[in-house]
Amino acid sequence: MENKKPVHIVVLGAGFGGLTFCKQLKLPNARITLVDRTNHHLFQPLLYQVATCGLSAPDIAQPVRSILSDRADITVLLDNVTGFDLDRKQVCLEKNSLTYDYLVLALGGRTGYFGHPEWERFAPGLKSLDDALRIRSHVLLSFEQAENEANTAEHDKLMTIVVVGGGPTGVELAGSFAELTRTVLKRDFRRIDPTEARIILIEASKNLLSNFPPDLSASARRQLEALGVQVRTETSVKDIRDGEVELANGEIIHAANTIWAAGVSASPLTQKLGVDLDRAGRVKVNPDLSLPGRPEIFAIGDLALVLQADGKPVPGVSPAAIQMASLVAKIIKQEVISGAKPVVRPAFKYWDKGTMATIGRSAAVAWIGKLKFSGLMAWLAWLFIHLIFLIGFRNRTSVFLQWTYSYFSYKRSARLITYLPQPTTAPLTPRN
Amino acid sequence: MENKKPVHIVVLGAGFGGLTFCKQLKLPNARITLVDRTNHHLFQPLLYQVATCGLSAPDIAQPVRSILSDRADITVLLDNVTGFDLDRKQVCLEKNSLTYDYLVLALGGRTGYFGHPEWERFAPGLKSLDDALRIRSHVLLSFEQAENEANTAEHDKLMTIVVVGGGPTGVELAGSFAELTRTVLKRDFRRIDPTEARIILIEASKNLLSNFPPDLSASARRQLEALGVQVRTETSVKDIRDGEVELANGEIIHAANTIWAAGVSASPLTQKLGVDLDRAGRVKVNPDLSLPGRPEIFAIGDLALVLQADGKPVPGVSPAAIQMASLVAKIIKQEVISGAKPVVRPAFKYWDKGTMATIGRSAAVAWIGKLKFSGLMAWLAWLFIHLIFLIGFRNRTSVFLQWTYSYFSYKRSARLITYLPQPTTAPLTPRN
Repeated sequence: MENKKPVHIVVLGAGFGGLTFCKQLKLPNARITLVDRTNHHLFQPLLYQVATCGLSAPDIAQPVRSILSDRADITVLLDNVTGFDLDRKQVCLEKNSLTYDYLVLALGGRTGYFGHPEWERFAPGLKSLDDALRIRSHVLLSFEQAENEANTAEHDKLMTIVVVGGGPTGVELAGSFAELTRTVLKRDFRRIDPTEARIILIEASKNLLSNFPPDLSASARRQLEALGVQVRTETSVKDIRDGEVELANGEIIHAANTIWAAGVSASPLTQKLGVDLDRAGRVKVNPDLSLPGRPEIFAIGDLALVLQADGKPVPGVSPAAIQMASLVAKIIKQEVISGAKPVVRPAFKYWDKGTMATIGRSAAVAWIGKLKFSGLMAWLAWLFIHLIFLIGFRNRTSVFLQWTYSYFSYKRSARLITYLPQPTTAPLTPRN
Repeated sequence: MENKKPVHIVVLGAGFGGLTFCKQLKLPNARITLVDRTNHHLFQPLLYQVATCGLSAPDIAQPVRSILSDRADITVLLDNVTGFDLDRKQVCLEKNSLTYDYLVLALGGRTGYFGHPEWERFAPGLKSLDDALRIRSHVLLSFEQAENEANTAEHDKLMTIVVVGGGPTGVELAGSFAELTRTVLKRDFRRIDPTEARIILIEASKNLLSNFPPDLSASARRQLEALGVQVRTETSVKDIRDGEVELANGEIIHAANTIWAAGVSASPLTQKLGVDLDRAGRVKVNPDLSLPGRPEIFAIGDLALVLQADGKPVPGVSPAAIQMASLVAKIIKQEVISGAKPVVRPAFKYWDKGTMATIGRSAAVAWIGKLKFSGLMAWLAWLFIHLIFLIGFRNRTSVFLQWTYSYFSYKRSARLITYLPQPTTAPLTPRN
């Protein structure tokens, strides 16, 4: 019996996973509802650039509606997921309730504090545009306050930036902040000398970029130290308080700016699915990325735990999310087209296109299969690969030119503080 | 006796007035301290564009420090003015206290609510970047909410934008919102039809743009109505509450989005100067723009009440602030150079370069001396004149190209909502 009613696919999350799925799944008799709690798709690999005043928010984000405005079959909703009723095939949102034929979970990751959620207040993570803009404002305001501040002990604290976590995000943040203070901010202030700012990168394990080959880890460390970053490996954080980071050895670092780049967990909503999760909250999916026992539900991207042939989990990087989304789109398309006939679903295989981390504006480390790059070549490779992953930007060439110009010219408008620290209008006393 | 100590000039406010003064006053034996409560200089004539998703914040703002980074004689402070001790020639800030030889007051205007400061909560004004971004977020979120909302009565309210005030700001806001909903937003939503949005412009007097020649006022009204704006002249607002605007005739408009463009007063700090002010709080300055009895203090821009030859006050527009700043820079320069010899100070004469208001993307009204333009010619004239007034942008040509492209392509990134309506991380329950 032919089913005339359109197949309804609900996609939760408009990151690389969710959006790639939407772009790739085009079926005449299917409709998609895409839900996200922000109105934009974010180019996450460059989020650290907004936090460190290298790019502006509009350079790396695009409204989801605009990206999908020509898809009459896709309805976009700005809403928050509150829960699931998987037996009834329902997703509960704050403002809507959706019934699906297929459900694609692409909710992404959240900053994880290893059981210390109270640290978040003093050490924000970097997962959203709001995160990045707040970090940027906070750091710039610390320097403004130092310029105002006569007390030199306060200067040291205000001009100290601690980054916790020596993975790619932490390395990129530390390198970019070091360059920001040594080059651009140096010229902007009169009473303080921003080149005296301390940038401290803390990593619990023996090496930065511990998933990279050891010689690249060492190269990253050297390049960071050449930029003036204090790299503290085999160093763990014991506590984070207002203006202080306490290390496991009892040492206290006085810092007005602390950023957490040490842990990513899956969205806490996975706990509501009633399936096995790993310690980071990721869903232990089948080889075809579906939930055990629920062939109509898929989990992709940072939400999914998929093991590669060597037993290691697929990393939570954008290319992985994109590849998973492609597979799920292919699977659903085949099943809808074939109707009631069971389809043998392919298993997900991650094609590792390489891993990179930038260190400042002209240095990086990159690792693609057996090839290893350092320095400027790595950085250029990184740039091109990311351009290829762009979704939703009208013209990759113009984006490339824009990023290159902005990035190398350290364009001023990336240093705006748009959050006002004070109320904007004082109440007016009526004049008699 | 020659005074070797550098003359200290304190400038309060980094808008057109304050910044023009800084750029024009270059003296070997003078130093300037410039204070502003934000870190950026704002190109105010285009602020409505950010509020209506035409341009992004970085397109129209530049950090003050960057603009003045090559001036070793200028110290920039991010601080708030709290009061004055004029006899001791001191300005009190939140974090600093400054003693001056000359004081330039360029604090600008504040949104004025005619004795109803409680309306501000429901009807924000448009004076800062923060204002514009909040208005933008609010309006976009209203449409998102309407897309989620099953109740049609709520739709009407959510998709109604009321602009109070029929001067240039109100006209520009209303026209731009009308275009936004009829063109761009139309394609972005599926359940609601943004072309059904009501844009209502309320003006108490008989005409929009009441300072313009009557035929231009009429032309502006026609162009707005052609865009679908409901123009209500001879209509006053009696009260503004959450989601409601009550008119003087008792009628109630249900609107989730209300913007106040009806009054600008001088910064309330003028009340602390101990001099005569007009009803809008503006300082009644001498012909040379100095405070009565205080030749070392000048007030310029929206803060100053200066009468022209015809008895009318100089309007609170950017060109006036720039011209006043030029005069004050000239006066102070002459006095410092001439040393103790008294200098006859020139009087301020306002050269009216013309007044314009845009209506949407290809229409406007403009009035320069005896010349009157409408339509596209007026709009192009407006664009060029504003480019000439730009301060701090590196390259006017590239800004012109950027604005033109962004403006006409309705670039998507001007529709980002960066303020998150919900907390970004839910607390994680540790897994056992």
